[in-house]
Order: sequence, then structure tokens, then C-alpha cells
Amino acid sequence: MNLLLFAPDEVGEAGRIAVRDARAAHLLGVLHAAPGDRFQAGLLDGPVGEVEVLGVDAAAGGVSLRFEPRGASLAPWYDLVLALTRPRSLRRIFFQSAAMGVRTIYLVGAEKVEKSYFRMHLLREEEYRPILIDGLMQGKTTRVPRVCLVRRLRELWDLLPDEGVRLIANPADGGGAALADAPGAPIIAIGPDGGWTEAENAAFAAHGFAPISLGPRPLRTDTAAIALPAVVGDRLSRQ
Amino acid sequence: MNLLLFAPDEVGEAGRIAVRDARAAHLLGVLHAAPGDRFQAGLLDGPVGEVEVLGVDAAAGGVSLRFEPRGASLAPWYDLVLALTRPRSLRRIFFQSAAMGVRTIYLVGAEKVEKSYFRMHLLREEEYRPILIDGLMQGKTTRVPRVCLVRRLRELWDLLPDEGVRLIANPADGGGAALADAPGAPIIAIGPDGGWTEAENAAFAAHGFAPISLGPRPLRTDTAAIALPAVVGDRLSRQ
Repeated sequence: MNLLLFAPDEVGEAGRIAVRDARAAHLLGVLHAAPGDRFQAGLLDGPVGEVEVLGVDAAAGGVSLRFEPRGASLAPWYDLVLALTRPRSLRRIFFQSAAMGVRTIYLVGAEKVEKSYFRMHLLREEEYRPILIDGLMQGKTTRVPRVCLVRRLRELWDLLPDEGVRLIANPADGGGAALADAPGAPIIAIGPDGGWTEAENAAFAAHGFAPISLGPRPLRTDTAAIALPAVVGDRLSRQ
Repeated sequence: MNLLLFAPDEVGEAGRIAVRDARAAHLLGVLHAAPGDRFQAGLLDGPVGEVEVLGVDAAAGGVSLRFEPRGASLAPWYDLVLALTRPRSLRRIFFQSAAMGVRTIYLVGAEKVEKSYFRMHLLREEEYRPILIDGLMQGKTTRVPRVCLVRRLRELWDLLPDEGVRLIANPADGGGAALADAPGAPIIAIGPDGGWTEAENAAFAAHGFAPISLGPRPLRTDTAAIALPAVVGDRLSRQ
């Protein structure tokens, strides 16, 4: 937990916050918070800054704090289109994508995606939101990623923003795709473990997605969902 | 499982192999193997090729195969120096690093690494080797990574190969480290979640490790252990 995060409606008069949950346990048990201590903190979808510890009630597991905003959070910088994957893998991808700065995660159906996946508990906002927030606390940012369920691939295209270079992971291809210095957040598409079908690949191509390779070794979806944004971010910041 | 892997001593006369374990279960249950079918396969630390299914005994869960070598496996291309991390994270890193093409994993002690970690079961070869092999089957290569335990950082330097550019993950730094087009496999160092100490960072610098950044967001060790090799591999193949 590199950044403590609070909901804006937890903040009372003069920036005061009282917590008695996992964050309080972390403050007391891991950070050994004492009055006067300061920690990096932020408000969900709001500024980053610091909290000062005003008081601790170790017996009751409560901590009272004062939040002081300092500036804007780093903004999310990419969108992820992900063929819906199994819960264990998806849980990891939610956390790690939020930490890496994803803006929107489009979870799409595909020929090789089990239809039943769309019924998993993890797709309920109350299930995935805490995982996304854990990821933000890791990556020290505040903007909660948006999750968008798209059961049929053909429903995806109208949902995507107009701006941003579009890239699709392709283990086979050469990967020479130069990244156009386009405005907007790049949109990165990652297929199911068995890959997209030819028709699906053609649909991505028709909608402007250029193939990008991570080398000759096939990666599991949850590995590619880290490796590809890392490579794209690195290429963009070096252009 | 993108590549079935067998130990060389499982191969009998004329390339014949009989299996009755998890690989047989995969062949029967997932790949629905029938006589005459062919699948990509390889021998541990040996060639890649194909197996032809000679016969199946579904009742007994056995499959008999004939292996035909076709050529050399892709060679591993980087070494990883990793501050020893907790088992759950390490398990993931073993699998994913093997899939991505690691050659040697140096697991090192550090100021912020719990000493007790060196006693974990997962550090026994019989525990980690199957995970590494699973990673190879994902990444379609055959060379089993070497795992090297280094309790004290100062014992590391003499163990490292002389060749290869040396890079250390550094969230703070600019990350402009140009990758020298040096011969040999790059050596990538990733610290504990709390970071290396100043003295440790100085020791890495004194031994030729240049900082490389993955951007302003701090990543968890298991995320960085994927993202950094992906970025280094991408930069090297584009130089």
C-alpha cells in the first residue's frame, strides 16, 4: 500500500477522516502510525496529498486523520481490450492493470471465450472495485478504472474512443508496428489463451488495430496484459 | 500447454514414449488425442519437434507416442536477479520467467528480504522444477532455467557472467538507460517490494548495473518481473 485512498465522502470538515477498517489496520499494524505521522494519501477520482495522524485508538482499531491535498494524480494512460478470461487470471489483471495506469478495461466475448464467464461473481462492481482500488494504492494514483462488459465483439467498436493508436497482441507477427505519435490513450487488445479466430482478427484489423508482437514465445493472457502495456508505454515515452 | 515436454530418459527405442501422468490426462482430456494425431513437443534441455500418437488406453489413462526431433529450441535470452520474495509471488515469477525465456534466476537476500524466506519449501528443486517446466510448456521452449540461491548480496558478483548489459529496476529514475549493444544475455535486477537500500543500490552501481525505469508508478515485484524483461527484450530487438 503505497498510497492510502479514501472516498471523497469520507472526508469531513477541515479534511478530517476517521477510519476503522483495513486501512486503519494497515496504519496501525504495518505503518505503526502515531499522532503527528504523515503518509501519502489520495481521494478516489480526486487529488493526491498527505494525511496527518491526529489520533489512534489501538484498542478499538480506529485512526483519525486529516487529509491535505497537494496536487493532481497521475492520469491513466491506456485502455485495455481483453477477451474475458477465467476469474483467477482476471483478478490479477484487474489489480495489475490498475497499478499500471489503465483507464478503461473492455471485457469482451469471443469465439474462444466460455459464455459462462460472463456470469462470474467477479464481474459485479462490488467485487472488482476493491481490487481496482488496491491496484491504485500500489501504483499511487486515484482514478478508478472503468470496466465495460461487451458480450459480443461487434458491439465493441462503437464503444471505443476515436483517438489513440490501436494495437493488438499477436505472437506470430513481426511486431515492427511503429507507434504513430497519435493523440489520445493507446488501446491495447489481448486475446483469449487460444487466440482470436481469423474473423475476429480481421474485424480488429478493419477497425484500425495494428499487430504488435512480444516475441516468439506465446504468453499467458495475464502475462501479456502486463508485458504489452509496459512495452507500449516504453516505446511511447521514447519517441 | 503449447508444447508437450518429456525428459530425454523417457524416450525409448525409435523415439517411443509411454506416458500415464498429467501429460497423458492433458492429451486425452483436453487435446482428445487419437492415434495418428500429432502435437508439438520437445525434450527437456534438448530439441523441439513433434509427437505422433501411436495408441491410447483411455481406461488406464495411458498414451503411447513417438517423438520426432525437428530442430533446436529457442535459447533463453536473459538472466534475472531477484530479491527473494514471498512464495505466492515467487511461484508466479518462476512460471512466467520460464515462459518468457529466462536463463538463470539468482534469488538474493537483501536488507528488506525476510531471512526466513530462504527456508521456504518452494526453494527445493523438486518443488520449483515442475513450475519452471510448466512455464517452458507455455513458452514453447525446452531449456530448464537454472535457479541459484544467494543469501548475501555480496556473494552475487562473482557468480554473474562477465558478458551482458546489466540493468536494475528503478522506479524513481528517468529510465533513459540506453541499452548498449553488448554481447551476451542482459542481466535484469529487481528489488524487494520495499526497494533496495542505498548501500545495496551503490553496490549494484559499482558492479555495472544501470538504472532502468518502468515509469512513475511503483509496480509489485511480480509485475516488474514481467514488465522489465518485456521492455528490455523489445528495446534490444529494435536496436
